[in-house]
Amino acid sequence: MTRSTLPSPDAVPAEALRAVVDGRWARARQETREQLAANAEMRADPDLTSAQYREWITDSLKFLTSSGRPHTGFDPSVGGQGDVGGVVAAFAMLAYGDLSLLVKAGVQWGLFGGAVQVLGTERHHEQYLRKIIDGELLGCFAMTETGHGSDVQHLHTTATYDREAGEFVVHTPYPQARKEYIGNAARDGRMAVVFAQLITGDEKPGVHAFLVPLRDSDGKALPGVQIGDDGRKAGLNGVDNGRLAFDHVRIPRENLLNRFADVAPDGTYSSSIENETARFFSMLGTLVRGRISVAGGAGAATEKALTLAVRFGERRRQFANPATGEEIAVLDYLAHQQKLLPALATTFALHFTQDDLVQRMHDIQAPGAGPVGAREQRTLEQSAAGIKAIATWHATHTIQTCREACGGAGYLEENLLPALKADTDVFTTFEGDNTVLLQLLAKELLSDYGRTIKKGNPLEIAPLLGRQLAGVLAERTGAASLTRRLPFRGIDLTDRTRRRELLAVRREDTLAAAIRNLAPAMRKGNDEFAVFNSAQDLLLTAARAHVDTLVEASFADKLVTVDDPAVRALLERVYDLHVLTVIDRERAWYLETGRLTAAESRSIRPLVNGLCAELRPHARTLVDGFGVPDEWLACPMLDDEAWAPAPGRPAEPLTDQVETG
Amino acid sequence: MTRSTLPSPDAVPAEALRAVVDGRWARARQETREQLAANAEMRADPDLTSAQYREWITDSLKFLTSSGRPHTGFDPSVGGQGDVGGVVAAFAMLAYGDLSLLVKAGVQWGLFGGAVQVLGTERHHEQYLRKIIDGELLGCFAMTETGHGSDVQHLHTTATYDREAGEFVVHTPYPQARKEYIGNAARDGRMAVVFAQLITGDEKPGVHAFLVPLRDSDGKALPGVQIGDDGRKAGLNGVDNGRLAFDHVRIPRENLLNRFADVAPDGTYSSSIENETARFFSMLGTLVRGRISVAGGAGAATEKALTLAVRFGERRRQFANPATGEEIAVLDYLAHQQKLLPALATTFALHFTQDDLVQRMHDIQAPGAGPVGAREQRTLEQSAAGIKAIATWHATHTIQTCREACGGAGYLEENLLPALKADTDVFTTFEGDNTVLLQLLAKELLSDYGRTIKKGNPLEIAPLLGRQLAGVLAERTGAASLTRRLPFRGIDLTDRTRRRELLAVRREDTLAAAIRNLAPAMRKGNDEFAVFNSAQDLLLTAARAHVDTLVEASFADKLVTVDDPAVRALLERVYDLHVLTVIDRERAWYLETGRLTAAESRSIRPLVNGLCAELRPHARTLVDGFGVPDEWLACPMLDDEAWAPAPGRPAEPLTDQVETG
Repeated sequence: MTRSTLPSPDAVPAEALRAVVDGRWARARQETREQLAANAEMRADPDLTSAQYREWITDSLKFLTSSGRPHTGFDPSVGGQGDVGGVVAAFAMLAYGDLSLLVKAGVQWGLFGGAVQVLGTERHHEQYLRKIIDGELLGCFAMTETGHGSDVQHLHTTATYDREAGEFVVHTPYPQARKEYIGNAARDGRMAVVFAQLITGDEKPGVHAFLVPLRDSDGKALPGVQIGDDGRKAGLNGVDNGRLAFDHVRIPRENLLNRFADVAPDGTYSSSIENETARFFSMLGTLVRGRISVAGGAGAATEKALTLAVRFGERRRQFANPATGEEIAVLDYLAHQQKLLPALATTFALHFTQDDLVQRMHDIQAPGAGPVGAREQRTLEQSAAGIKAIATWHATHTIQTCREACGGAGYLEENLLPALKADTDVFTTFEGDNTVLLQLLAKELLSDYGRTIKKGNPLEIAPLLGRQLAGVLAERTGAASLTRRLPFRGIDLTDRTRRRELLAVRREDTLAAAIRNLAPAMRKGNDEFAVFNSAQDLLLTAARAHVDTLVEASFADKLVTVDDPAVRALLERVYDLHVLTVIDRERAWYLETGRLTAAESRSIRPLVNGLCAELRPHARTLVDGFGVPDEWLACPMLDDEAWAPAPGRPAEPLTDQVETG
Repeated sequence: MTRSTLPSPDAVPAEALRAVVDGRWARARQETREQLAANAEMRADPDLTSAQYREWITDSLKFLTSSGRPHTGFDPSVGGQGDVGGVVAAFAMLAYGDLSLLVKAGVQWGLFGGAVQVLGTERHHEQYLRKIIDGELLGCFAMTETGHGSDVQHLHTTATYDREAGEFVVHTPYPQARKEYIGNAARDGRMAVVFAQLITGDEKPGVHAFLVPLRDSDGKALPGVQIGDDGRKAGLNGVDNGRLAFDHVRIPRENLLNRFADVAPDGTYSSSIENETARFFSMLGTLVRGRISVAGGAGAATEKALTLAVRFGERRRQFANPATGEEIAVLDYLAHQQKLLPALATTFALHFTQDDLVQRMHDIQAPGAGPVGAREQRTLEQSAAGIKAIATWHATHTIQTCREACGGAGYLEENLLPALKADTDVFTTFEGDNTVLLQLLAKELLSDYGRTIKKGNPLEIAPLLGRQLAGVLAERTGAASLTRRLPFRGIDLTDRTRRRELLAVRREDTLAAAIRNLAPAMRKGNDEFAVFNSAQDLLLTAARAHVDTLVEASFADKLVTVDDPAVRALLERVYDLHVLTVIDRERAWYLETGRLTAAESRSIRPLVNGLCAELRPHARTLVDGFGVPDEWLACPMLDDEAWAPAPGRPAEPLTDQVETG
């Protein structure tokens, strides 16, 4: 594989790079950029109280509504355009602006509106969707409870059918069952989609979704509805997160969102999906868009942080070159490059991965898509879970690095990094705790060895490791895995094919290791949880290795489509840096398993350092490729005026908000 | 080395463990705990504006002053008790309470008062120190400039001697030279210690410290003094950070803090230290207490975060054990243990390291200590630099992990983790950027190979690698290093001596690698910066490896002093987990250099996991050993009442701040 010459930075056409970055939803993205740029005065004062900031953000929703963007994502049957992919791609870019607005919009249209659309039927759509889309009916998605965040299948809110009244009685039996961290609850929400255990007669068919009015038209809580306030948070203080509890609140039977199941007036329960667990996870699965949106928002936030850090690193100078006496730009230091450039490479990789994910979701969910195969849906959910985890951890880690790379300036709210850090922190927790997500993904990867999908309790391993699996295990722990353990002699780490094979072999081997260690769980008498627990880290490793291959594949597939030779040469280097960074991170594993020799492993760091030096002059070109609007990057630490050194210039207005004696 | 049996948690005497943790300054620590506990109402409302919070914190200073603690640290000659170590140990514990107060107090007494005491002479002490100690004269430490944070030797503020007037004229020549991020500047400071380039006649002997009044008794900025506000920050918003610029401000000649140098009335400059660079770094060196205090504060904040996370992890339950149906406490999951317990072990290690550092500082600085040897002072500064970097990075990383481990609850300000995260974030930057600190430490370690210490520009390598070093290099790159490269066959990783040797050999080898790679810088014609830059990561690795050995030694030394056998057995396990965690983190290096075989490396994770499982039941005992007052840990997520599950209990006041319909 010939290595093309890297062009000089000014020889890389910015529009061509932008077109590659924007991909299929270039139009939606460009429109969103323009709208963001035109509304840069929407930047909130960082010293607002929570009450003031919430009001600011609720008002900002109007801006979004008038842009027409939320409409595009809903189904044509309810007045939307069905541009599922476009709306998710555009939505993520709100992270370039204000993440509280991104989350508020996500709650309103993605979660609340999304639940009504995909879990409800025509009667719900006709009655509510238009008003939801237009921002007239603000609502909540009330699933999480204080006692049940990850294990929502076993939440405790109940909805008991009263046949005589033709109503469901929604009830919070004790404090741990209250709905918690619910966006739109503390201030604005008039209605909530409440997830509760459905009870009708003797039947308890599990968790279902119900429309529950919260406030009357004066904004006063309705009878039996108790609303609390989460108060100040680490970030996202423009979102009114709160608590909801219900004291025997009655709703009409028709308020059950009845796409997958229904209760007849006489109380008879029916569902198109017989198995309770399968039914619950089918409902959850339709909400995959929220998880994908969170990954997209995390990516966009990371892109903004890197843009700030790279621009700062180019102009910030400290310590003089002993030979020339000139102070050195901090981005010229190897250590600084090592902080930012591998992270930048991975950010590109995740950007293309996200685009593929959104594409797949669009293909499944857009109008006219046709019935979706179970396997296709499952694979989408698996990928969404894994990518959400990796993308949000990457965001948290990278934004922290960017803050530190910008020193004291990065600690001031006026320079934008503090809000990026504080607001994205919870992304590793909501829409699925990352550790639990990777575990669920691992479980799915294990179950792919068998023919039956067993969702539900991630601790239930034994059903997976049935007779079918026994055979697979025998194969894997026997000859086949011995063969695999032979070292890959002669890895040429400058060879892309070899690098890709290294990622693939790690995915295979880590999954095999997890299976081997879980085998004892099959044998009767063994403590299933203890066996699972002792192998939990192997499961997580296997899941992460799987996601690494998804990400590499998305980047490689993207490269093939790049026409402009200068852009392609540049992105090939970025791809190389990303893949080497993954291998570098996992060096110990490769050495322990004999997949790399010590000499091969030692060759990685010089390769990484060399790529950092090569890419340094292109760092600005690369971050500009993301196209974060300049209006949303404007901040004092990047202000050219403030940086002009002028020895001898008198001390004029040296500070703003000046107290002058 | 026999491995003692681990006692059950209730067999470990809490007071004995506390006595070990409190060490030499048990009295100061216990008094501080009691004062903190008695003032728990001092917890600020997280929704205060910056202005409100600053006022709150300035008022809180009075509480500290009345406690008498600040006095204890100052010299007896000025009314203090000279309890240098005690005051630093007590000061760090303010992190259990409010980090804005810790930083405010640190600025006032550590930096401002500290500079006046150690850089000033009797006339300054008599005129100002009492008022500083009593909190009547609030002041600033104005060293950092917008353009010079790390390289303060080349800052641009000037102080030019006017012989006729007998005054210095302090001036900020252009915007980049303004003092920046200065605590106590935006609201409270009446005076500043300003670091400026001293100019007298034709002489420019470098940076010195001057007392510059900022505000009059009405709080109004004095003529020529321009004061700006940094505005809202990511955290520490109770501290009034601001900017200072001087427009030809005149101060009496006597305002020069003249411990190390002086200017006579006729303008003649004199100094006890002839070399300018040596003089500047001697001045800086006396301020090492600030750096040590920051490390201590970071450690205390980490201890509080882990206490919160462990207590939460014991009570938070999610997902049912398939065999028993009982929901599992999250701290029982291996992945959760892996997040918290190695970090807890390292926190103990750093706690004992910090105590040793404070001890050494006390022995050097306490009254009656006698003259300090240059080597002793230099070693203290080296250790302080390295430990500050490692301790603050550990804090940032661990507190983030604790937030994630507490899920959504960890994101609410009411549960204390958000403030710990936001407030400690800048600790990796102030009092020395961590990367620069490690680099300076590496440079010192290199220079120890030669006989001459060359401080100053960390990029100036060639002077270090003189003839003396050439000989050392020859030895290291020749036979000696070949011998060292022979693999350490037969590492028994359960053997503590072997583990310690692994840390020691890494320190040796990484330093040797840095030297080998820097050798080309010695040859004329080579680009010195380019050579340095290509080896910068090796320098940082060598510095980190050195600090790892300091930390291990402090923990090992502490263990020897522990009398109670149950406490010792427990802490030995904690020590083992810490050391294995370090080796685990560096597995790739050990494998690449042949210091560990693949089999030995693969044995580490099971050892770590096993220790996690062993220590899990003791996690509560261990965090309680730190003695964070319960009053400062009280928060809803740890509220026992809220956690009592009560199926069937009616939905009473389920939320606070309830809106009820």
